[in-house]
Formats: sequence, C-alpha cells, structure tokens
Amino acid sequence: MEVSSLPHRTLMGPGPSDVDPRVLRALAQPTIGHLDPLFLQLMDELREMLQHVFGTKNSTTLAVSGTGSAGMETCLVNLIEPGDRVLVGVNGVFGTRMCEVARRCGAEVTAVDAPWGQALDYDALRAAAKAGSFKLLGVVHAETSTGVLHDLAPLRAIADEASALLFVDCVTSLGGVAVDLDAHGIDAAYSGTQKCLSCPPGLSPVSFSPRAVDVMQRRKTKVQSWYLDVSLVGQYWGKERVYHHTAPINMLYGLHEALRIVLEEGLPARFERHRRHSAALAAGLTALGLELPVESGARLPPLTLVAAPPNVDEARVRRELLSEHNLEIGGGLGSLAGKAWRIGLMGSGCTEANVIQCLNALSAMLARQGWSTPGDPTDAARASLRESGGA
Amino acid sequence: MEVSSLPHRTLMGPGPSDVDPRVLRALAQPTIGHLDPLFLQLMDELREMLQHVFGTKNSTTLAVSGTGSAGMETCLVNLIEPGDRVLVGVNGVFGTRMCEVARRCGAEVTAVDAPWGQALDYDALRAAAKAGSFKLLGVVHAETSTGVLHDLAPLRAIADEASALLFVDCVTSLGGVAVDLDAHGIDAAYSGTQKCLSCPPGLSPVSFSPRAVDVMQRRKTKVQSWYLDVSLVGQYWGKERVYHHTAPINMLYGLHEALRIVLEEGLPARFERHRRHSAALAAGLTALGLELPVESGARLPPLTLVAAPPNVDEARVRRELLSEHNLEIGGGLGSLAGKAWRIGLMGSGCTEANVIQCLNALSAMLARQGWSTPGDPTDAARASLRESGGA
Repeated sequence: MEVSSLPHRTLMGPGPSDVDPRVLRALAQPTIGHLDPLFLQLMDELREMLQHVFGTKNSTTLAVSGTGSAGMETCLVNLIEPGDRVLVGVNGVFGTRMCEVARRCGAEVTAVDAPWGQALDYDALRAAAKAGSFKLLGVVHAETSTGVLHDLAPLRAIADEASALLFVDCVTSLGGVAVDLDAHGIDAAYSGTQKCLSCPPGLSPVSFSPRAVDVMQRRKTKVQSWYLDVSLVGQYWGKERVYHHTAPINMLYGLHEALRIVLEEGLPARFERHRRHSAALAAGLTALGLELPVESGARLPPLTLVAAPPNVDEARVRRELLSEHNLEIGGGLGSLAGKAWRIGLMGSGCTEANVIQCLNALSAMLARQGWSTPGDPTDAARASLRESGGA
Repeated sequence: MEVSSLPHRTLMGPGPSDVDPRVLRALAQPTIGHLDPLFLQLMDELREMLQHVFGTKNSTTLAVSGTGSAGMETCLVNLIEPGDRVLVGVNGVFGTRMCEVARRCGAEVTAVDAPWGQALDYDALRAAAKAGSFKLLGVVHAETSTGVLHDLAPLRAIADEASALLFVDCVTSLGGVAVDLDAHGIDAAYSGTQKCLSCPPGLSPVSFSPRAVDVMQRRKTKVQSWYLDVSLVGQYWGKERVYHHTAPINMLYGLHEALRIVLEEGLPARFERHRRHSAALAAGLTALGLELPVESGARLPPLTLVAAPPNVDEARVRRELLSEHNLEIGGGLGSLAGKAWRIGLMGSGCTEANVIQCLNALSAMLARQGWSTPGDPTDAARASLRESGGA
C-alpha cells in the first residue's frame, strides 16, 4: 500500500478528528535537532500556548511524547507512590482506566461509580472524600466513551474534603470546552492532541500545579517509569535543557501549528462554535427520531452519544458510512457496545458542513434499514444554528 | 515563530537524521481512524516490513507509541518482575540507562563495565554470566553515546551461560547495520525511527521472540506500565484489534514510507553504503589530523566519535557549524562531554555529499581556531570511496 493512496475521510468519531491542512503541512517541515536553539524556542512557545489553552500559569506544562493515555500514566506515576490512597469517579472507560493505571502504581483505589451515560453523583463523591483520606481525587472532565461532560467548579471543594490533589482528564475537552485549570484549582491534568486541538494523535499535553510539583519533589521512591519521569522530562522542557529522550520533533511542529490555530480563533469563540454545532447536531438527530441518552445538561459538545434503534444494525451503519461516504463515526464502548454511536464535532471538524453531511448520510443509511424518519434533520439543524445566531 | 520559517539543517549528529522528502510527504497525508480497515492493513504491512528489517519471524513485532527510550522501557517492564536478576554490559549512556530502567522495574542489576569508547569485554561478560543466574542479559548493539558497535554473534552463548533472555538495543543500528535477531538468538530488541530508518523521532520498533512472549505470559505480576503493556498493545497490533490507545497515525504513515525506502534499497546495499561512507569520513577526519578514539574494529558505521583537539573549543565549532553551515553534529556525552564530537551518517543522510560538506565545513571551523590540517580531507575521503568501489 502507498500511504498517498489512502482516501480522505471525514472524521466524526471520538477522535482522531479532522486535521487542518496547515497542521499537516507543519508535520512535513524538515526535521531539525532536538537541541537546536530554534527547536528549543519552539518548545518555549509550545509551553506558553499550552498554558493559555489549559488556563494556567503552571510552569510545569509540557507535551508528553506519547498519546493521551501516556499523559494519564505520566500524571499518576509521578504523583502516586505505593500505598497511596486514590479516589476516582468512574462512569465510563476512562475513569475505569484511571483506576487500573493507579493500581499499577501501587495505589489503593476507591471508585465512586455512576451508570455509563450519566454524570457522576457529586454528593456520593463528596461523601466518599469525607469518609476517607486520599492523596488524589481523579475525575474525567469529558468521558469520551459516553459523551458526558462534568462540571469542574465543585471539584476543588470535594477534593479539599479529603485534602487531596485534584486530577482531571481533559482529553476530549481541551480546546473545545473551557478547562481553566487555575480557576478550578486543578493540580494535574492531561489531554490528547487528536480531539479538539485537531492535531494527529501522538502527544499528550500535561500540566502540574506548584502543589503537585511539590508532591513530586517530596517523593520517597523513584518514579517507576523512567520515560515519563517529570523530574527528568521537565529538565529538558525547562531552562536546564538536559537531554532525556529525543523529542518527537515533527509531531511537536504539528502541535505548535494546531495551537496557533486555536489561539487565532480565540478560546471563547471556539467553545461557542462547539456548543452551537453540537446543539444543531442534536436537533437534527432528534428530527431523525433518534434518542440522545445523555441528558442535555451533561452533554459534551465535542462528542454526542446516540442510541442505535433496536432494529438497526449499528455496525452496518458505521461500515457503510465509511465505505460509501468516507465518513467515520464511532460505536459504543463497554456496556454501550453494539447499542450506540458516538458522533464527534471536534476542532476543525466542528462545522455546519460536517453536521449536514453526517445527518444526510446517516438518514440515508437508516432508511436503507427501514427506519422511518419523522422530520427533516437538516432543516432542524439549520434552524438550530439560526436560532443560536450563526451566519 | 512559524514552523515553516525554520531553516533546513543537514543533520549529521547522533540523530535525528535527515528525513527523506517522501517520508515528510507521508507524514502530511490526511489522518484516518485508528480502527479504519485501511489503517489496520497499513499496520499489518508495517509489522511485515519491521520483521524484514529486524531479520525475524517474531509475530510480536510492532512500533511502540513513543521514542526509542519508550522501546527500552517497553522491553524491560514486560520482561522483568520485581526481584529478577539482570546482567547489563555498560560502556556508555544507553547501557547506563538500561540499568536505571531495569532497577525501576524492581530488578537486581549487575553491571559489567567497560571504558566509554571501548567495546565490552566479552570474557568479563561471560564470567559474570557464569557466576550468577540471570533472567536477562542486556547489551547495547550500537552505543550512540560513543560510536561503539558490538559483535552480536557471541552473545547468545553468553546469555545461555546464565539461561538468560538476550535483550539488545538496536537504536543506532537498525537499518544501517545488520541486526538479524533470529540468526543471533535475540529475545527482545528495540530501536528508534530517527536514526538509520530516516524517519522523524516518535516511534520505537520492538520485537519479542516466542520465548520472550512465553516469559511475559507467565508473569505473576501485572506489567507496571499500562501504556507499554505488550499483552494489551499486542491485542491492537494483532488479529484481535482491541482498542488500547489511539495509535499515532501520521507518525506510522511516516514509518511505513521510511521502511519502504529501506526495503527498496535492500538491506545488504544499505549496510554497504553505511560502511563505505563511514570509512570515507574516517579517512577524511584522519587527513584533518583528528583522532578517532574508537578502534577501527569496533567502529559503528552510522556514528563516528572524533576527539576534539585540546586547544579547540569544541562547542564553538558545533555552534558555528550550525549557524553558518546549517550543519548539525553532536557533542560528547557523559565523560566525553566537551572532549569529542559525534558525526552521524545515517540512512538518507549517509551520502558522499554529506561527507564532503561536513569535512569542508569542519576544516574551515578548525582553521579559524588555529588548527593546522596535515592533509586534504576531501581528497582522502574520495580516495577511500574509489577504493571501496564507489562510482
């Protein structure tokens, strides 16, 4: 196979999302050295832009040389020592994964579960935090497996009940929904590049508060991962410029350009764009007669969970969307496998054209399986966009 | 800064190396999904090409979503359990790193040291292997910090003295020097993409023998890294296609194209090209009056260690080569810092033009610092190429 023969897909699944051509061009810039003064300048700019997007002044803000899951592991291996107690809110794949990774760091994990597709019960989380003493409270801001968005505002107070560090997964929120680490008192956060930043997968932005850095500096044991040890990686990203591992140069080019695009648009405008198009998609899906299992107050704008009707073969729909329309949407995960779709509107891919293309193609694939549509989905989507003040 | 404004450098350091424009174009191919059937086909082809380049039939051959050091850590976290005894040959940064990573996995490490810039003493290694019982023997095939190449042929017998798995770092050899895992009885190996494969940094090819896979399957403890757990990552690369983490799509495009280029040239021709140009560089450097501290039988063709003359400011030479000639060479590491250069001839960058450019530029920078050159370096390099049958 020649890579150049691959088709252009419209990526409306849970990520990767469509990548801006400017970012693709940046990836193809000739490689320079990881200690080249110009590359070090680029890293400084990357840190500044990441701080802006994360809403933080944290100096320990950088891009881990791995995907989002490497970012999760980076936060946990650096903050946890064997025997530490960790509290995690779990209502999907990524909360579950947080527990698993924390256990592999030797943590004693307490999970507060909520049904998949629903937001966490903050009263239950608060009660658990009060009942025990924990080093860290972990919450997934935007559960990519279910399309649930959590309110960050109450979490600091809940973490304080247990005198815990507050640790947040921002994989599917960063760049699409406000995260504001400093305003929310978040001590550690990570994201991926392939969601609302619209860069290919491969890097994980992370940020640590001064309090988290202090906890890392007072560790009694070495970080179990050498590759992800922030005390070492941070000396390359920091003023010391000590070689640790060879940075993924071209991926960092791509992230640099992706962040420039984010900041050119401006965060408030970008968040509003995600909100508006998500509402339009929801209106169109409803007109198609489909159910959105996540209640409207907890819906994650960049990713919408859609219940597949009982008599429809959901995998066939996805297969045909891909083969006939070059359109990728996601299936359900875990308890939602075979029962739901996940439709992403992230970053560059969060456009009216994509909303309309997706609704039309989905409508046609459903009709093929005998689904009768009560309303006109594209009319409903366009009406929603008009109401919310779009052009 | 705009990424597009970065200058084109000639990369003749210890890596990253110059990247072929075909690979850069592949990186810029629009992203598709990590579960797209076409992407899965590309991964199958990647595995086949990696098997070819590694010289192995190992089905557990894949590219780790991190740089070469993540590959080292992948091998060690998967093969080592707390309390295991590990024997490592150490004569540079990467042997030292192997010990450190193994200790963080809970291993009891025995190091057999040799002076930096010299090959390991295989008699000492054999004596240590005989004296103890070890789960794993680790050796760096090509020590990037010193430019020393080890003979792989005797290592299996040495590992057998201790009934140990044989683990080899092929970061700066894969694609430039024969590694032939199966012929040498190597159980685990890793490399990087940014050396003789001439792809940007960001991925680490790894391969595990059936015996190593058996050891992993019989673990009593979970692998401490979730991100690098081969029992999980392997289910995504294998027939199961179980989602683990979002693959670094565009980097894998780049590696796919880089491996196609390697196999189009053919491994024997590629190894011979590295050998010839390295010999020409050595002839030119000798004509310049410079000393090559590594004895000729142990020299690593892709990377040449050069002693900086005592009265020359070696860092100034590197700085001026970069700023005036857009040419990057490397400095010394560890005990060689400030005393040596490392000149790479890797993959696409291993050409007569680069040899000549480097010799001319280095000659000019040395002359500026008062170094008088006994011979004509480019004549010597060209004569060497003619003798070895070049065009």
